Amino acid sequence: MKDVINVKWAGDMAFEASIDGYSLLLDAKPEVGGSNAGPRPKPLLMTSLAGCTGMDVVSILKKMKVELSSFNIRVEGTLTEEHPKQFTAMHVIYEFTGHNLPLDKIKHAIELSQDKYCGVSATLKKAIPITYEITINEW
Amino acid sequence: MKDVINVKWAGDMAFEASIDGYSLLLDAKPEVGGSNAGPRPKPLLMTSLAGCTGMDVVSILKKMKVELSSFNIRVEGTLTEEHPKQFTAMHVIYEFTGHNLPLDKIKHAIELSQDKYCGVSATLKKAIPITYEITINEW
Repeated sequence: MKDVINVKWAGDMAFEASIDGYSLLLDAKPEVGGSNAGPRPKPLLMTSLAGCTGMDVVSILKKMKVELSSFNIRVEGTLTEEHPKQFTAMHVIYEFTGHNLPLDKIKHAIELSQDKYCGVSATLKKAIPITYEITINEW
Repeated sequence: MKDVINVKWAGDMAFEASIDGYSLLLDAKPEVGGSNAGPRPKPLLMTSLAGCTGMDVVSILKKMKVELSSFNIRVEGTLTEEHPKQFTAMHVIYEFTGHNLPLDKIKHAIELSQDKYCGVSATLKKAIPITYEITINEW
């Protein structure tokens, strides 16, 4: 299976990406010649991981009839200080809010995503350790 | 060094990402329960690579006084057919347009990005092979 994306230089450090019919402007910080007109590439990589595992988890929990009132994912990436400034680890914090949330089902949904379904996580895991934690807010 | 992003579930398969102060909606295809309201996570990973190396290359070529009239980057990702549908390779096509473009400097700028500066490439290279080619359109 193949997937293709395109980015077109938009002057200075800006690039306009075409992804699945959507347009997204990427840009760098002013300190390195950018105009801060869009997100940076590295946080985008972490966003890709969050979106991938997030979609798995909501889809699995829906099949398990688990109702969430809100669901948030934070990804913390650790990078080297030297060039190339690359990721050495990522930590995913899954935060669920709801009433009578079943921890076992939630844990299982995350395990299925991390071990079986999330292709971004499977790709990145070959390069760096990916860890996670779960927070549940009952109301 | 740490970097952090956040995504918040926006119903069904949609997630609203907060990246560097920007908001980006991710969504899945209708076939898997999404509404196609934004790009998918996997192409976003390839976009992260394209933006990272693209910013390096324009910044290095600027220092080398190379003037481009346009610059485009396409990334082709190969994925497994089985779950987790993960990347097995990425191929980057750098396409430059300009007048009297110096191939040696362009090659060198790309090598510097791929080998020394691009942290996304350095991260992904630990997982999968990343190859590239250069196209130059003279006018």
